Amino acid sequence: MSRKTAGPEIERLVQLLARLPGLGPRSSRKAVLSMLKRRNELLVPLSEALQQAIAKIAECPVCGNLDTVSPCSICADPRRDQSLIVVVEEVGDLWALERAGVVSAQYHVLGGHLSPLDGVGPDKLNIASLVGRARSPDVKEILLALNATVEGQSTAHFISDQLVSADVTVSRLAQGVPIGGELDYLDDGTLAAAFKARRKL
Amino acid sequence: MSRKTAGPEIERLVQLLARLPGLGPRSSRKAVLSMLKRRNELLVPLSEALQQAIAKIAECPVCGNLDTVSPCSICADPRRDQSLIVVVEEVGDLWALERAGVVSAQYHVLGGHLSPLDGVGPDKLNIASLVGRARSPDVKEILLALNATVEGQSTAHFISDQLVSADVTVSRLAQGVPIGGELDYLDDGTLAAAFKARRKL
Repeated sequence: MSRKTAGPEIERLVQLLARLPGLGPRSSRKAVLSMLKRRNELLVPLSEALQQAIAKIAECPVCGNLDTVSPCSICADPRRDQSLIVVVEEVGDLWALERAGVVSAQYHVLGGHLSPLDGVGPDKLNIASLVGRARSPDVKEILLALNATVEGQSTAHFISDQLVSADVTVSRLAQGVPIGGELDYLDDGTLAAAFKARRKL
Repeated sequence: MSRKTAGPEIERLVQLLARLPGLGPRSSRKAVLSMLKRRNELLVPLSEALQQAIAKIAECPVCGNLDTVSPCSICADPRRDQSLIVVVEEVGDLWALERAGVVSAQYHVLGGHLSPLDGVGPDKLNIASLVGRARSPDVKEILLALNATVEGQSTAHFISDQLVSADVTVSRLAQGVPIGGELDYLDDGTLAAAFKARRKL
């Protein structure tokens, strides 16, 4: 931009918002304008919500979930199955599983997947703490609910190796045709996995 | 959502962000997670930038631009052409013209376009103040740089009628083939306008 079009405060806001996934410089500019136009309905509440988030939300020291209480409400819930730990890459995956309501157990958020090229080694993920938790006598099973990507699966193999010494069953999610999936649109890998894991009707 | 997946603070943040143009509930959730994960690089600076915006940015009482000084830096700049007022619908349009660097004059932001069905009458837009400014002896021309939409053009006609009593030239942007535009992809209206306004080479 050769000319100053807005104050540095507006420019800074545009630049920061543009760092969010899904927003580019152009949509960020639109978003900032919309905020400034709807000051009391959007700008002020958003600012307050961010301040609340900074003040209250922290990572659970046990599982890595984000919550306002520590340990998080999932770790603190005695009605949940204490014998199963579901390992996920990100908090978003935990939310997805909770939304689906498929399991009422413990979680463990790794904080990503192994990616040597990006400098993400085992020490950058919450793997050591998972191995520690797996040694608890309460824990019987570790479900590695990682993404069905190359990185997710190689991370799962690495963790599985680390858990050999612990007295737990290590499992992974089933792979196959997604519900509602049309064979014609599925990739070869999924079809091969679904074929190999075929089950008797 | 049948089950609580995150604290109310996170949910509130997701809902507020989802109100921004270009972000839906899903991308808003992703954005919030990304913010919480990059607390010091993103969440805290964004919160501070919003607080700065609330504290400092206000609408210019003269032209309706958003700035940290009042009147805004454009209105206060004596090097700009004081005889031309460029009328735009939104602050974003003002920014676009400034980015392009096409004109160094005064601006007037209407705050939208006339839209009787949405309850936006002349009293909801900054039209009265424009008529007031047009009466100033310094002002010779009012350029109605409104969107080339039905609403923008009918708003331009309405304003043009209001300015009859003021001693100013009222103009509008030229319409035609956009630079780089391919005829085959242009709509009939643009082609017709370009034909009618054809010029000798």
